[in-house]
Amino acid sequence: MPYTIDLLPNQGDSTQKVAILTEGYSTPFAAKTANSFIRYRTDSVVGVIDKTEQGKTCQSLFGVGGEIPVVASLADCPDANMLLIGIAPPGGQLPAEWMPILYEAIARKMTIVSGLHDFLSENTALMQAANEQGATIVDVRKNDEQNIAMRENINHDCLKIHTVGHDCSIGKMVVSMELTRGLIEAGNDAKFIATGQTGIMISGEGAPIDCVKADFISGTVEKL
Amino acid sequence: MPYTIDLLPNQGDSTQKVAILTEGYSTPFAAKTANSFIRYRTDSVVGVIDKTEQGKTCQSLFGVGGEIPVVASLADCPDANMLLIGIAPPGGQLPAEWMPILYEAIARKMTIVSGLHDFLSENTALMQAANEQGATIVDVRKNDEQNIAMRENINHDCLKIHTVGHDCSIGKMVVSMELTRGLIEAGNDAKFIATGQTGIMISGEGAPIDCVKADFISGTVEKL
Repeated sequence: MPYTIDLLPNQGDSTQKVAILTEGYSTPFAAKTANSFIRYRTDSVVGVIDKTEQGKTCQSLFGVGGEIPVVASLADCPDANMLLIGIAPPGGQLPAEWMPILYEAIARKMTIVSGLHDFLSENTALMQAANEQGATIVDVRKNDEQNIAMRENINHDCLKIHTVGHDCSIGKMVVSMELTRGLIEAGNDAKFIATGQTGIMISGEGAPIDCVKADFISGTVEKL
Repeated sequence: MPYTIDLLPNQGDSTQKVAILTEGYSTPFAAKTANSFIRYRTDSVVGVIDKTEQGKTCQSLFGVGGEIPVVASLADCPDANMLLIGIAPPGGQLPAEWMPILYEAIARKMTIVSGLHDFLSENTALMQAANEQGATIVDVRKNDEQNIAMRENINHDCLKIHTVGHDCSIGKMVVSMELTRGLIEAGNDAKFIATGQTGIMISGEGAPIDCVKADFISGTVEKL
């Protein structure tokens, strides 16, 4: 697939230790991104940060993740090398009170991964701090797509299953993941193709379709 | 309507003298933007620039515009104060050979209006020249929409007619324009709402939907 998010390791990268920030939003719906990442990348997650829920487990908050702890601060995840923003709300803005935690992650030279519409990499102060400290900021939704579809390289022998449903937390991605898993277990050559920020974070590649300029969606999808 | 392109005068602004650049693309399909602008803003247009067709009339090239002349260069439109890029091709790039004409327009302190996806205002050299000369560059498609629809201010008594058709030069906008004209002539209170770059140039307001990030189309349309 030509559209990859280079800085996001693929599944199986055991060096990735992810702390997920959901402070004050730790429900399966508000923290949809956290919820799905924990479900499908369980082994990468070292903790969820929400001091309003500290001491609980991921399982009790999200229904996935077993004993992964919910902690009060980033300091409680000393081995984490990646901070994942666990929400992607309509409108896509970062809660202002989360900013100090981002600077804390930068001071630790962590990689910060965000699926927000408000690009962290366009925050001048944050980027300056990241550059000074050698931290990395990855905006999963950021793209510069300017191609339209050309009907090229279409393999008609490849069965494509497109999940459809209304916007936000309806289960399109989870259905796709589970279908892929089932197909592979049944001996088929199957692959999940991510078209949203959470799927990209989980699978390490894909395209953030809801953040592509409307005219270029066809060309972006064609490359997937 | 809250979404207006401030620098584009509304219909009836008699001070606007528009030269339209279609060099090498002077057909009704390739120069769709020129064609529709000439059709609906006939009185504003002083000439079409295409040296490969010089000496002809707009009518003979586009089927609209009557005796408006097709000229060899911008110098042949001495009273023009606005240069309109007459094409908006798939992919939206400016033909490289047009660049000298843009600098010529800047030297004349003209307003350059473009509906391309490649924003002229992001060309550093061009903007520097424009700032030095006091010329203005308007990218009709440029927007920073980040709202989703909230179902606010919906007037159920207002009949809305939505024209639908496949992409590019199929007649959605012309049908809307003609319906509006017919409704007004029949004594109704009707208004054309532009959702594309050509409609915005003609009516002076609207939103460039095909250049809005997909997630925010609903909020952009709701404001129209």
